[in-house]
Amino acid sequence: MTPDDTTLVGRSVPRREDRALVAGQGRYLDDIASPGGLHAAFLRSPYAHATIGGADLDDIRAMPGVVAVYTAKELAALLPGGQRLATGLPSSSIAFALDRPILPEAEAVYVGEALAMVVAVTRAEAEDAAEAIDLDLDPLDPVADLESAARDDAPKAHAHLPHNRLASFGFDYGDIGAAFDGAAHVVSRRFRIDRGGAHSMEGRGVLAAPDAMTGRLSVWSSTQTPHALKRHICTLLARDEGDVDVTAPDLGGGFGPKLVTYPEEIAVAAAAQALGRPVRWVEDRREHFLAACQEREQLWTVEMAFDAGGRILGLRGTLLHDHGAWTARGLNVPYASGMMLPLMYDVPAYDLNIVVTVTNKTPVTPVRGAGQPQATYVMERLLDAGARVCGLDRAEIRRRNLVTPDRMPCPRPLKLRSGEPVVLDSGDYPETQRKALDGIGWDGFETRRAEARSRGKRLGVGLANYVEGTGRGPYETVSVRIARDGRVKVNTGAAAMGQGVGTALAQIVADHLGRAPATIDLTLGDTREPYGFGGFNSRQTVVAGASADAAARIVRGKVLQVASHLLGLPGDALDIEADRVVVRGSNSGQSLSLAEIATASEGLPGYRLPGIETPGLQATERVLVEGMAFANGALAAEVEVDEATGAVRVARLFLAHDCGRMVNPQMVDGQIMGGLAHGLGNALYEKMSFDDEAQPLTGSLADYLLVSSAEMPVIEIAHSESLSPQNALGVKGVGESGVIPTAAAIASAVEHALEDLGVEIAEAPLTPQALHAAIRAAKAAKGDTT
Amino acid sequence: MTPDDTTLVGRSVPRREDRALVAGQGRYLDDIASPGGLHAAFLRSPYAHATIGGADLDDIRAMPGVVAVYTAKELAALLPGGQRLATGLPSSSIAFALDRPILPEAEAVYVGEALAMVVAVTRAEAEDAAEAIDLDLDPLDPVADLESAARDDAPKAHAHLPHNRLASFGFDYGDIGAAFDGAAHVVSRRFRIDRGGAHSMEGRGVLAAPDAMTGRLSVWSSTQTPHALKRHICTLLARDEGDVDVTAPDLGGGFGPKLVTYPEEIAVAAAAQALGRPVRWVEDRREHFLAACQEREQLWTVEMAFDAGGRILGLRGTLLHDHGAWTARGLNVPYASGMMLPLMYDVPAYDLNIVVTVTNKTPVTPVRGAGQPQATYVMERLLDAGARVCGLDRAEIRRRNLVTPDRMPCPRPLKLRSGEPVVLDSGDYPETQRKALDGIGWDGFETRRAEARSRGKRLGVGLANYVEGTGRGPYETVSVRIARDGRVKVNTGAAAMGQGVGTALAQIVADHLGRAPATIDLTLGDTREPYGFGGFNSRQTVVAGASADAAARIVRGKVLQVASHLLGLPGDALDIEADRVVVRGSNSGQSLSLAEIATASEGLPGYRLPGIETPGLQATERVLVEGMAFANGALAAEVEVDEATGAVRVARLFLAHDCGRMVNPQMVDGQIMGGLAHGLGNALYEKMSFDDEAQPLTGSLADYLLVSSAEMPVIEIAHSESLSPQNALGVKGVGESGVIPTAAAIASAVEHALEDLGVEIAEAPLTPQALHAAIRAAKAAKGDTT
Repeated sequence: MTPDDTTLVGRSVPRREDRALVAGQGRYLDDIASPGGLHAAFLRSPYAHATIGGADLDDIRAMPGVVAVYTAKELAALLPGGQRLATGLPSSSIAFALDRPILPEAEAVYVGEALAMVVAVTRAEAEDAAEAIDLDLDPLDPVADLESAARDDAPKAHAHLPHNRLASFGFDYGDIGAAFDGAAHVVSRRFRIDRGGAHSMEGRGVLAAPDAMTGRLSVWSSTQTPHALKRHICTLLARDEGDVDVTAPDLGGGFGPKLVTYPEEIAVAAAAQALGRPVRWVEDRREHFLAACQEREQLWTVEMAFDAGGRILGLRGTLLHDHGAWTARGLNVPYASGMMLPLMYDVPAYDLNIVVTVTNKTPVTPVRGAGQPQATYVMERLLDAGARVCGLDRAEIRRRNLVTPDRMPCPRPLKLRSGEPVVLDSGDYPETQRKALDGIGWDGFETRRAEARSRGKRLGVGLANYVEGTGRGPYETVSVRIARDGRVKVNTGAAAMGQGVGTALAQIVADHLGRAPATIDLTLGDTREPYGFGGFNSRQTVVAGASADAAARIVRGKVLQVASHLLGLPGDALDIEADRVVVRGSNSGQSLSLAEIATASEGLPGYRLPGIETPGLQATERVLVEGMAFANGALAAEVEVDEATGAVRVARLFLAHDCGRMVNPQMVDGQIMGGLAHGLGNALYEKMSFDDEAQPLTGSLADYLLVSSAEMPVIEIAHSESLSPQNALGVKGVGESGVIPTAAAIASAVEHALEDLGVEIAEAPLTPQALHAAIRAAKAAKGDTT
Repeated sequence: MTPDDTTLVGRSVPRREDRALVAGQGRYLDDIASPGGLHAAFLRSPYAHATIGGADLDDIRAMPGVVAVYTAKELAALLPGGQRLATGLPSSSIAFALDRPILPEAEAVYVGEALAMVVAVTRAEAEDAAEAIDLDLDPLDPVADLESAARDDAPKAHAHLPHNRLASFGFDYGDIGAAFDGAAHVVSRRFRIDRGGAHSMEGRGVLAAPDAMTGRLSVWSSTQTPHALKRHICTLLARDEGDVDVTAPDLGGGFGPKLVTYPEEIAVAAAAQALGRPVRWVEDRREHFLAACQEREQLWTVEMAFDAGGRILGLRGTLLHDHGAWTARGLNVPYASGMMLPLMYDVPAYDLNIVVTVTNKTPVTPVRGAGQPQATYVMERLLDAGARVCGLDRAEIRRRNLVTPDRMPCPRPLKLRSGEPVVLDSGDYPETQRKALDGIGWDGFETRRAEARSRGKRLGVGLANYVEGTGRGPYETVSVRIARDGRVKVNTGAAAMGQGVGTALAQIVADHLGRAPATIDLTLGDTREPYGFGGFNSRQTVVAGASADAAARIVRGKVLQVASHLLGLPGDALDIEADRVVVRGSNSGQSLSLAEIATASEGLPGYRLPGIETPGLQATERVLVEGMAFANGALAAEVEVDEATGAVRVARLFLAHDCGRMVNPQMVDGQIMGGLAHGLGNALYEKMSFDDEAQPLTGSLADYLLVSSAEMPVIEIAHSESLSPQNALGVKGVGESGVIPTAAAIASAVEHALEDLGVEIAEAPLTPQALHAAIRAAKAAKGDTT
């Protein structure tokens, strides 16, 4: 079905998820009752690095309510298939394997690492007992700092490592030497992006329940990837794939850290199976700070060469990336950073060396944006610097370098991690930028800035362009079936984490099947279907959407074939309206319900099928998606800087945005607003701090600042819809869009507000303390010591 | 894969089911543990016909262990979708609906009908309480006799019926009047076939368990049709199809009566759901006698016209068929009888009126053979009579009338119930008969008979030809998948009841996938797959076999495609051996495990699939099977009759048999031997007797005689393999083969042993009392009163 005015695709239909959620009837992990169930709690390492000795567990086992206590030794017996989580992604660049153990046997390598598990009747009893375990820990030298960690003389993050450089790889094309040799201008900078967490409203959690009647193991987890969790459970517990079900219930956010499988999930599943009772663990906020994966920490040393007209000639440098203490998911974050850096601009020569270092900190995994916000930050900061040296307006230098729409689809001299070429699929980047400039009032801003300055206020405006790689393939499985009662059943391995994937899939399916999405029963995160991947990389509307579209199209065809046979009318005389097949433009009243058609389609013993070649109204599709769909956008930000305190108030954010066809514009806006809030946090507030001993200094929401509604500026969004040629619906992902440009645009605006002082911003988040110091330093350099 | 010397198809590989079964590790219904589970027992009607009044249930509820008591009234609240079992088969000939209630509200219509259910902690408590229910029953006139039931002045089996003739229909082709007008000889006979049961070693049973964590309802039942049971549960309990699973565990036989859904299965499922606890009911032998469906009871009044050369000119008459008290499954038994009667012989004109009568007896449903044994009995008895009047050898008159192989596939002037023409697909019937005659020593038998007679013994030899309609479509679902651990998973709605369906499907699948059937995990009777039908009508090797063959072929193709991509070798250079893909005729050692190939086939995020268009090594196939595959056979029987007592000893049975390609010859022999034993029971022993009030007189295995090993004769089998053109494997069904000709062949042999007395046999079973009376009557007619 080609989306048009009559289709549900393209309309802001209300999210089907919301009625239950706003009524408090969501079914999150901790809402699932488990009669007779037990609770798990973990003893976590207080040291960033320590050897692990023994512990006397007998006293612990005797504590009230305690059912079982596990250190690595006790757990090993329950994990016949191995005791480490394989990352599952090929990474030939990795120098040594750092697959994380379920519980480490000999060495703790970050603060918060789970070292022992207690299962007890109540959570409180489990926590008390876990706290009482007197595990013999002997501190070792930790490595906390990303940069020093890369040196040969640094303490080793794991005692046995030869050094901490997990991987060194890079990107390299064009004649980089010639580019810099012939440059009219060169800017060199060093940028630091700090760590943050995802801080979904709901933390992690897992519930595992063995069934005494069937021997099956049912697992619920607040995970973005139920199929991957099932795979790990089957491998490590040596269970048959057919005997384990993993379900992701309602998720209160994911944002990346719930993309990987965690030791706690395996430990709880193993204990439940061994004890023959349900076992549950729900992460508390402190655990989320310590043990849920984090991201962003990178240190860039880069320089960019320009010709006299401000055209980029080359880009080179080094990216140091903090990997944390274990490999949670290959190298995709630093790879994405390096691939994204030059992607939307014409950069004729590129040479980036990436060094990934192991530190004694929480492991790193994608957090919304997955390396792309850092790359955008660096690129856009370099362009602002370039504009200054070239004497160009910041918008103009970008315009001169953006890939133009006449070249779409546009192959880039870059490769995806799979080795396939990167192709920008569609979009008009200069037009997107223009819309952002118009929206924020870029051309008239100097007047406003001067007027405000005359009132003692420092206003600034900034701009950042970006692309977002979305829709990572190869596929997601979606099956569409009309049951005998006429209800449409949509099952998929795609996993919702609050984005409204179910609403989008229902719209897509409903357009083929009578446009009555209420009768569509969706099962997401369902591992009973053939293998799929789940939710990450803004992929689901693209890949699951494509499969849903294809499957529903097939089912529609079968509905009409059967109805045609039963009614004795040609299929093209028929249409589906709500839950009935009707005769187009006829008042004859002839019609059949989907229930009647579905029942007939399944056949009767000894009878031919009614006009169809295969029985039943069902199709399971796994449409292959190659390459990526690149959404693009330009964010303009207006800020006010308090020169005296270094405080930054973001007054307006205007995002010009293009994610191809919007299945549900209101949901797109929701994704963007959430992303902008997250990006605002990255720009100004969210910072996971560690001391020199790699002890986290931010372990609560009192220390670690999340954006609240008070900090949120006015947000305006202008949409374009450059259909992606890569899927039938023309859609692209949007989940990470808002977060990618925000720190870059705000930094640009802050510099603009402080232009006369010559303050340059080179770090995110930009705290008031840091900005205040930068202002004082800039003033001092100018001889102003006020 | 075309079966040949190297394939598993065609070989008597040991049954994979047997290791567990002979070690006592089978998992029958009653072996499934249900912690905290309850037990159900039923109050059953002591009257064949009675009005139902009230009962005081409070005293019953107060009895030890009682958890709940249900009459129709209490159960109604648990059955929002209705309180009757629809038969699900179209029967335009039926005069009035007799869909059976789960528990009847106002009227009991046969002895043993479940009227109330008690659920208690133990089975004993449930039985005691059920027995204590003082339900007010007021007897009505029952109708017991098939023939009188058809009369207008008979008591009505249900008080509201206008008469007891549920249906009148027939078969009619050719000029029947001309056939009889021009006949050289006409024989007219009346035949009576009595009722019997299936008496599977395991009776019926059901266990239903609601899951408090998921809300799902899991049901296990000793049923041949789990999909149908699921459908009824979903309809009557108004449950969503996605929330109910029905599993058929190991079955200790089925033989037809487990083909239909029973009231007990629904009542137990409803109670389990209402009580939130597992509830189990396991039929005892007495219940099986009273309430498990039965078959065979028919009364035929027929005549056959021959020309002078013994060629059949016409066949006409009436079939009265006893339907029992409710419609359990349409009219397929009498339809099959009428369709089968003239099928394998050239009968130029045919006119059969069928009257189906309702009686106050246990409902009738197919029992192994499903109307075909009765038709064969009648046809073969008529041919024996015809041989006498035409002066021909009994074999010769058959030979002259059999459909000949040069006419195969041979359309017949008959229609399937669906209205499609009947086509005999393949077979050499005269050759099959010849092999049976050779095997039993037909030509030299007169000498043996005379020699025995001289020693005071009466030997006889008999012959019966038959065809068996098998492989009823339209399809069965089979999915084949290779899991990431390399195990081959075969899931199907086909249901095993002890025949070895799993072994046959494993052979078929294994031939495509390395021929190592041990690594094949089979799940039969699995309602989680798309809709299917289950086990009846000797269909599963045909329809599930065809789907398994097609699915495994697709999966093999994908295995080789992926391996070709990974090894960089053409697919036709590769083969699958055991669980690895190897290079044909190479010692290079290059190979890949199925686990490696399966894992690669599912893809990795961001990577292309390895050489395949759709991910994963799986295929779900539902091959459509049209028409039927007709197996054929000729049974020769040698008997010794004790003239003084009427006792018959069957000395030898020689079956020439042709069921197309034999997937597993040993299993074919097993099916045949079981069928012959069952047929021997039908011929001589098994008779469900009722008195004039329709009270069963045979309620235990002391009254109802099953064949034991002592009665079993020497059995010899000669196989032919006329491949069926209707499926890729060329297979036909075999499950009912042995039972169809046995009573006919034995009756023929008994007549032969008593030829000089002129005793004719016209009833089955043939009891010693009846035969003794017939011998005395024949002798008296000859003036011999010894």
